[in-house]
Amino acid sequence: MADSRKASLNTATVRKQWNLAQCIEGCARHGFAGIAPWRDVLAEMGVNDAARQIRDAGLRVSGLCRGGMFPAGDAAGRAAALDDNRRAVDEAVAIGAECLVLVVGGLPEGSRNLADARAQVCDGIAATLDYARQASMPLAIEPLHPMYAADRACVNTLSQALDLCDALGPGLGVAVDVYHVWWDPDLAVQIARAGAGRLLAFHLCDWLVPTRDLLLDRGMMGDGVIDLPLIRHHVEAAGFGGLYEVEIFSAGNWWTRDPDEVLNIIKERIEKSA
Amino acid sequence: MADSRKASLNTATVRKQWNLAQCIEGCARHGFAGIAPWRDVLAEMGVNDAARQIRDAGLRVSGLCRGGMFPAGDAAGRAAALDDNRRAVDEAVAIGAECLVLVVGGLPEGSRNLADARAQVCDGIAATLDYARQASMPLAIEPLHPMYAADRACVNTLSQALDLCDALGPGLGVAVDVYHVWWDPDLAVQIARAGAGRLLAFHLCDWLVPTRDLLLDRGMMGDGVIDLPLIRHHVEAAGFGGLYEVEIFSAGNWWTRDPDEVLNIIKERIEKSA
Repeated sequence: MADSRKASLNTATVRKQWNLAQCIEGCARHGFAGIAPWRDVLAEMGVNDAARQIRDAGLRVSGLCRGGMFPAGDAAGRAAALDDNRRAVDEAVAIGAECLVLVVGGLPEGSRNLADARAQVCDGIAATLDYARQASMPLAIEPLHPMYAADRACVNTLSQALDLCDALGPGLGVAVDVYHVWWDPDLAVQIARAGAGRLLAFHLCDWLVPTRDLLLDRGMMGDGVIDLPLIRHHVEAAGFGGLYEVEIFSAGNWWTRDPDEVLNIIKERIEKSA
Repeated sequence: MADSRKASLNTATVRKQWNLAQCIEGCARHGFAGIAPWRDVLAEMGVNDAARQIRDAGLRVSGLCRGGMFPAGDAAGRAAALDDNRRAVDEAVAIGAECLVLVVGGLPEGSRNLADARAQVCDGIAATLDYARQASMPLAIEPLHPMYAADRACVNTLSQALDLCDALGPGLGVAVDVYHVWWDPDLAVQIARAGAGRLLAFHLCDWLVPTRDLLLDRGMMGDGVIDLPLIRHHVEAAGFGGLYEVEIFSAGNWWTRDPDEVLNIIKERIEKSA
């Protein structure tokens, strides 16, 4: 139903099979419009080499994964996080990313203070935003599923992410990943509230029933229960015109397959199930 | 910090070790104020025998687990669910339960229509409420964590549950289980919104990091990251005066322990960590 020529490959989807150079080559060969690398594979390849090869392959970069992880137990940890986020902005600029995705972080080790972690996230984004604005790099807060509130991201709904956007102003938006938000009774309202200017990325995969692992059991589009065409409709009706970034963590299935098969299936499923 | 004399044992916490008769005897012996049986163990023992022994043991029944599971793929399935919910109301009355807990159900097999499932839930609760009001049995909607939206309950926030309460009127309230709601940025506001009249049950356990299984890896109070005293404070400040019902699904740990040890630790942890 959707146009597979707008596919972008989040490199995590084939992270066990391909390095970044192989991902770039594979995306180009399979007719993907874009790619979204993680910073670890970017570092492995070298930012400049990666930037050049992505550009030479004619690929857009739908986002760089990821900045964030702001909360820390002490001032040194918070400062280190801000340093790292500035480097992430620089890398996003270097590879021509359309946004830097922020997975904001959860509770510091030993803490149960969720309100404080959320306040630290707000402060961390504010500080990073100053730097990102000078570099003209949009920051995309990715609300993560509530099951990651403790250890990955304490921003868990689109509403909460947009409250941060409202508070902190221009240069900041959201990444809507269907896996994290599909359950939200307020989803359509919040996507409309975000609007074209703040919908910076759209990530696809599916929620499997049963889900056997909290992190590494995401499904391919069409294999789960998410009404992908409905969410895509909301996002596009709100004005989003960007790529369909496919990000599937799947230790037991997709990470064990031939990556050329995975990319073919991604294109088929974007057409058929998204 | 909390008063362990207000402990109630949800029988699921020792379901692998004790039958209902043993749970009743154990609760009385350990000085628990209440018990909350599941319907399967109630059926196994016989409702009338169970009701008599619970009464003779001087235990309150903080809730009957559970009614709900309303959505179905066809009219026959929906009618069967309503029948079953009426039986659950009868059983709750028979054992003197303070409420019938509703786990509302998720997507019917093969469906991706979350809005329709939610509409079915609203209809199902409305129908059951007519019956429950005649029996003077309060219904407690238990919003479940969003990770159960597909297969267990498509009511996933306290806000959503309270919207149903607002729409359907008297005789309906909520069961607040810390495991399901601890992450919610809107939690304090929604607990206050619920108020004493609609806070019908309060369930304790903890969220472990890491959580190794979506269903069967809940933690004992104090072993995880939930700020239990804070949530208890919100609930009690809103006027809740009921029992602390402890419900821990734990295949790898608590279900393998001596249940007398489990009940002792529950009391200790209510004092120390809740």
